[in-house]
Amino acid sequence: MIQLYGSPLSGNTHKVRMALAFLGLPWDERLTDAAARRSDSFAALTPMRQIPLFVDGAFTLRDSQAILAFLAARHRPGDWDGAAPEERGEIAVWLSHAANEIANGPATLRLARKFDVPIAEDHAAAITARILPVVEAHLERRDWLVGDRLTIADLAASPYLALVEDAGIDAAAWPAIHAWTHRIAALPDFPAMPGWPAERVAIEGAA
Amino acid sequence: MIQLYGSPLSGNTHKVRMALAFLGLPWDERLTDAAARRSDSFAALTPMRQIPLFVDGAFTLRDSQAILAFLAARHRPGDWDGAAPEERGEIAVWLSHAANEIANGPATLRLARKFDVPIAEDHAAAITARILPVVEAHLERRDWLVGDRLTIADLAASPYLALVEDAGIDAAAWPAIHAWTHRIAALPDFPAMPGWPAERVAIEGAA
Repeated sequence: MIQLYGSPLSGNTHKVRMALAFLGLPWDERLTDAAARRSDSFAALTPMRQIPLFVDGAFTLRDSQAILAFLAARHRPGDWDGAAPEERGEIAVWLSHAANEIANGPATLRLARKFDVPIAEDHAAAITARILPVVEAHLERRDWLVGDRLTIADLAASPYLALVEDAGIDAAAWPAIHAWTHRIAALPDFPAMPGWPAERVAIEGAA
Repeated sequence: MIQLYGSPLSGNTHKVRMALAFLGLPWDERLTDAAARRSDSFAALTPMRQIPLFVDGAFTLRDSQAILAFLAARHRPGDWDGAAPEERGEIAVWLSHAANEIANGPATLRLARKFDVPIAEDHAAAITARILPVVEAHLERRDWLVGDRLTIADLAASPYLALVEDAGIDAAAWPAIHAWTHRIAALPDFPAMPGWPAERVAIEGAA
């Protein structure tokens, strides 16, 4: 059984949760809070002490983007991770944005504003102000970040853009992003995430 | 002909330069300095205004990690980007570290200390202090970051770790990293990079 070390409110964990749920793979989720991450036993599993951490038998993998790349290569090769080289490159653009600008922008702002983690908010706000317009403009012209289907680009980039209101950002100001995060939440087997605004769309859709 | 928008002293540009040189592909390098990056014509090519920018005919790709993923998928599939899913995942770990911790740690320290860019040095120094021991410990047990050969993990992660002295870090304090950056510089067709300490190793080797 796959073991996923993570936390219910971690958007990085949710990237992997979505992938496993969409793939129909069972997994055992191991709550790994801040104290657990500081433990020597967790450091022995992964030197960066990051969640999520993916463990399947003897195979251990850190980093949410990397876990998505592994799951795609194993279960949806040429589909979730791209077919032509050009598509693989374009997916990798969004994995980089997820690892850098989205992590250090909206995800960090959320840590500061929802969880009161002491962080340089100005720096995170500046990165957020750079990346959100780029994602919004990109999604104004398409339903998915790359190609015409879900890929790991969407799984990697979406959680902290779906959770922007936790970061004090008005989701309505970014309508293309907002619609895309709802599109993902409407997929079969989407696992619920506290703060991911799926319910509201369902209500709007019913109105 | 491939066009590479970049800068001679940009480690991110050098990731792509190395890949193109090792692949034996000709390219036309277009100097893109800070003023050029602020221009509207460059923003029209790439919304994040980042270098390197890769252009080949109608195909444009930003982000150094993504350009490496594209070149690997096009020219060295299953080799430079990994064979088994586990290997693809492990390579993706280092692409994330290159996009995040290495970019925001040693690369940012170098901007501050070599180029006097006004940046929060303490934050970059803290990230550097987290990532360097992890890379060092990893390379103490192997010659290449993933598997037993060069992959895009090495190309993505190495420039700013080779250029640590530009960031005020003593390269001798990180011997496994130092040996690995020399190993890369010793590969056939390695393009010279100002500050990449290849010459010194050659002299040591001759002594």
